[in-house]
Amino acid sequence: MRKILWITVSLLIIFVSLVEAIELQPKGKPQNFSNARIENLNPYVPGEQPTDPAIIKLNTNENPYPPSPSVQALLNGFDAERLRLYPDPVCRELREVLAELHGCKAEQILVGNGSDEVLLLAIRAFVEGDQRVGYFEPSYSLYPVLSAIEDVETYEVPLDDEFGWVDPDPRAAALFFITNPNAPTSLLHSRERIASFCAASGGVVLVDEAYGDFAREHCMDLALSCDNVLVSRTVSKSYSLAGLRLGYVVGPEPLIAALYKIKDSYNVDRLAQDIATAAIRDQTYFKETVTRIQVTRERIALALREKRFEVAPSETNFLWVRPSDRDAAGLFERLREQKILVRYFPGARTGEWLRITVGTDPEMDKLLACL
Amino acid sequence: MRKILWITVSLLIIFVSLVEAIELQPKGKPQNFSNARIENLNPYVPGEQPTDPAIIKLNTNENPYPPSPSVQALLNGFDAERLRLYPDPVCRELREVLAELHGCKAEQILVGNGSDEVLLLAIRAFVEGDQRVGYFEPSYSLYPVLSAIEDVETYEVPLDDEFGWVDPDPRAAALFFITNPNAPTSLLHSRERIASFCAASGGVVLVDEAYGDFAREHCMDLALSCDNVLVSRTVSKSYSLAGLRLGYVVGPEPLIAALYKIKDSYNVDRLAQDIATAAIRDQTYFKETVTRIQVTRERIALALREKRFEVAPSETNFLWVRPSDRDAAGLFERLREQKILVRYFPGARTGEWLRITVGTDPEMDKLLACL
Repeated sequence: MRKILWITVSLLIIFVSLVEAIELQPKGKPQNFSNARIENLNPYVPGEQPTDPAIIKLNTNENPYPPSPSVQALLNGFDAERLRLYPDPVCRELREVLAELHGCKAEQILVGNGSDEVLLLAIRAFVEGDQRVGYFEPSYSLYPVLSAIEDVETYEVPLDDEFGWVDPDPRAAALFFITNPNAPTSLLHSRERIASFCAASGGVVLVDEAYGDFAREHCMDLALSCDNVLVSRTVSKSYSLAGLRLGYVVGPEPLIAALYKIKDSYNVDRLAQDIATAAIRDQTYFKETVTRIQVTRERIALALREKRFEVAPSETNFLWVRPSDRDAAGLFERLREQKILVRYFPGARTGEWLRITVGTDPEMDKLLACL
Repeated sequence: MRKILWITVSLLIIFVSLVEAIELQPKGKPQNFSNARIENLNPYVPGEQPTDPAIIKLNTNENPYPPSPSVQALLNGFDAERLRLYPDPVCRELREVLAELHGCKAEQILVGNGSDEVLLLAIRAFVEGDQRVGYFEPSYSLYPVLSAIEDVETYEVPLDDEFGWVDPDPRAAALFFITNPNAPTSLLHSRERIASFCAASGGVVLVDEAYGDFAREHCMDLALSCDNVLVSRTVSKSYSLAGLRLGYVVGPEPLIAALYKIKDSYNVDRLAQDIATAAIRDQTYFKETVTRIQVTRERIALALREKRFEVAPSETNFLWVRPSDRDAAGLFERLREQKILVRYFPGARTGEWLRITVGTDPEMDKLLACL
């Protein structure tokens, strides 16, 4: 009797499953419309953006200080009606301010929706068919993601054991990205090495100076003197405007003109243009903030070395540190439990290190107390 | 004597030219780093953005009314320090507001830096190799530009003599863009025709409803019921926020997930997310403004027909009009002289017509007075 019951129940289940499978197939298993390349893509993973205000956030290299007071004043006085009109497609006013800052013509500058947009435009403009995008490993992990999105091959050049410069083949890539100072290592590649690589290179070299304002030296003059060099900057870090999405690239007019041809016509909104202009005009505040971060950086680097951490000589607004027991993953978790968020990059090259953004002095003191 | 003088002068000119040519060649003719496709690209030409405040601007389909008062309140109360942190990469709050508005899940929505970014992402995600991007001619002139940038072939379907629907080959394009209501013609394609094309299509259909809020009907339900349909919207027109750059696309989760994989990680800034959220929450103001524009549109269409203009039955915030003498170019110039800027699209199909944005009632009365 029991057996018959079980068999009946089983048959019922099979029947219902079959009906459901037939019913659902056209809806539940839609035809695959997106292409195989996109399906297999490993997207870029941005650092966590926690919502708990108690967390000390040292994981995405944001500036711990507010933007220039002129930004607050601008927001308070902004007439919302201006937003009904399209923005200036070529960011004329902002580019004039930037041109004065860098001693070049406005025609040598393109402004993007974050410097990430600039990097993508550069791949699209300067790499085609079987040409390659080059970059160091480790450096900004977005380069391989953008290359995959644009379906171009990559030329990855491993840095040496101390994350130092290794000469790339100057003919291997149509476009070579140099993060300088480098991320996540915080180290500066020397100007001389970059300059001779640019001179030898058969392609375009884009020096990504997202952290350049925190370094002793930069390569802007190469963008203004060589016909194949671009330098990109962002207001995210040194101007405390990561929330804004605004970056720019400087270089020879023919290269900049090529980027203009393919950019989205209205790529930077009105508020972002105005806010960035106000922030960049306030160089006094900018320099004060950068100096403050540099001072904190040196103090914490020293304190960490005293605690037997290996600390790379940083030229950025973050520290690249290796705990003496090399258990970076464990330390990451322990800090997280104490509501301090830093960045851990798993992997053979980076797995023993942590990247720690330089916060305010009280934030960094709390970090030291936890270590 | 004179002859010798002329010969000497000529020789001198030739000599100087030669020296200059030799001197300048390496600098004046830099190596060409950008690829041939980009060099030959015809970029999208946005409508003129004049700086003279006396000009009545009826050329780029902006909303003549300010955005919701909640936008002004938000700006005045915005704490600039929030801009130092990266924005939410997936626009969670805004997507929840949109999901409620459209009766779907947040996972069915992607927000972009203007709907133009959404269109570009769709080409990248759904078209590869020798597949094609389809669209009607005339419709939004950005489609062929984006296709050229992404290096994919196009499938252009000419509308009929009255700019009406013509059945495209449902197998011809991996992605088909339907501007609905159409621009620059202001005409609405019927839901039934779009629905049956979507059902027959072997690819993705993106219904670009940039002007959808001004129309009698829309296709959002197709995006929520078919596995191959996307509907894009923008806050530029109906929410008076062209200056913001914010658009979004609604559709089946697998398609939206594919777009997420390739979007720039932080594509929409903090202010834009907050402002759009505030504006979309104020549906009362939104509906009032849209109705006001529709009322003005009908009044002006009638008045123009009385002046013997041919006026297409508009479902948008602009009018597509043909002067009785068909000299649209001449009328464009005469209006311009009187500081009224409208849009003229040269070409066989569009050259006898003008596209006139619906402005405020006083602006439109001035236009009528000039005609």
